[in-house]
Amino acid sequence: MRNIRLRLQYEGTRYQGWQKQTSTDNTIQGKMEVLLTKMCGEPVEIAASGRTDAGVHARGMVANAVFDAADKERGGRERTPDEIRDYMNRYLPDDIAVKEVKEASERFHARYKAVGKLYRYTCYDGPVKPVFQRKYVTVLEKRPDLEKMQQAAAYLEGKHDYKSFCGNPRMKKSTVRVVDKIEITRKGSFIYFDFHGTGFLQNMVRILVGTLLEVGKGKIKPEQIPDILEAKNRQMAGPTAPPQGLCLIKVDY
Amino acid sequence: MRNIRLRLQYEGTRYQGWQKQTSTDNTIQGKMEVLLTKMCGEPVEIAASGRTDAGVHARGMVANAVFDAADKERGGRERTPDEIRDYMNRYLPDDIAVKEVKEASERFHARYKAVGKLYRYTCYDGPVKPVFQRKYVTVLEKRPDLEKMQQAAAYLEGKHDYKSFCGNPRMKKSTVRVVDKIEITRKGSFIYFDFHGTGFLQNMVRILVGTLLEVGKGKIKPEQIPDILEAKNRQMAGPTAPPQGLCLIKVDY
Repeated sequence: MRNIRLRLQYEGTRYQGWQKQTSTDNTIQGKMEVLLTKMCGEPVEIAASGRTDAGVHARGMVANAVFDAADKERGGRERTPDEIRDYMNRYLPDDIAVKEVKEASERFHARYKAVGKLYRYTCYDGPVKPVFQRKYVTVLEKRPDLEKMQQAAAYLEGKHDYKSFCGNPRMKKSTVRVVDKIEITRKGSFIYFDFHGTGFLQNMVRILVGTLLEVGKGKIKPEQIPDILEAKNRQMAGPTAPPQGLCLIKVDY
Repeated sequence: MRNIRLRLQYEGTRYQGWQKQTSTDNTIQGKMEVLLTKMCGEPVEIAASGRTDAGVHARGMVANAVFDAADKERGGRERTPDEIRDYMNRYLPDDIAVKEVKEASERFHARYKAVGKLYRYTCYDGPVKPVFQRKYVTVLEKRPDLEKMQQAAAYLEGKHDYKSFCGNPRMKKSTVRVVDKIEITRKGSFIYFDFHGTGFLQNMVRILVGTLLEVGKGKIKPEQIPDILEAKNRQMAGPTAPPQGLCLIKVDY
């Protein structure tokens, strides 16, 4: 058996997210598996570092796939990693690309071996909507208070139970995570929220951003953040920010 | 009468170019005029610094429109330039934006008063197609010879009769133009062709790029460029490069 590691980019706009649910839905995982299965002549499953929601983008998604070393279409000769990459890019739609394929050890698993992730959420608050970045930003009506959001972010960093920031109300497993960096920076009319952590709960980054934006509007005070964390209650946090501003930048192993 | 000057951005992908031809076609000019006419309650015409072809983008298109000082919808009070900008952006599709509206003198005309233009053409020659810039670049199969293209570009700069680089075979007026700068630079897998000049003929930038890319492939030698200019024959130059790589960056007045 052969284990390959893939680095992917996609624009999530047209998709129902990463994770395949039925065989007919429009997901990134579905597109990838159909293609790898065609290439190998037998069913191939692909595992990603995690799911991304419908409409969320990725610049550095990592996935792996285990399959028969000799793919049948080529009469037994193994495709090199670059050949696999080129094969996939030839058939993938324009909004998904395989940036890199590498040979991985049998023990490599994109989800279980991930030790960190970097997400970026981008907002825009200029007077005129941005034409060229319109699918990758969330447009704000008003200029938020950056300093207040930074103060709130400091409370959110660290090792916490993020149950208040979890989109899955039936989550039974631990909701404790470590978020070692939340950085909020402005460049012109763009505001970047960078989150680095060991792992994130369902919708967690979007709920963190939604809450920080409430702080930016003055509806939540930075000092209320510890209470929101403490409450372990989704109702206490802000709304889930829309998906199009979110992008998975990088996965660490 | 009032004369307003507008700075526009658009992604040309979905449009048949700037210039309106019939009242039902899908052009940027058409979209703008319908909106200004609605705002003013009387037919308004808009003049741009020049046309852009179908599929070509603009970051800094300049246009002007002359209309009755008091727009009727508002019972006579004049909209401020920012109010006009906001009105237009509220109704324009997502891929067109009015970045700025300014009051202009009666003598200002976006086409006749333009003294220079900057165009950028972007190519990409990495091993994997770019997902996020896919609508703004032309993907090359092979890495072109940058130095050869730069040598050829030096021959193309200056004051020349660019008849060989004109897409309109029935052009009766002078085809002499001044292109004071052609700069070709690489950043990673992106290659930028920047053209600055007093004016450009129909398809001229795209034919210049198409010819430079032939030089980059080794099919035309840099030293052949003077002969191509001299021939004043469209057949001698290279093909017209595809529209999506082209963007009008800036117009000088």
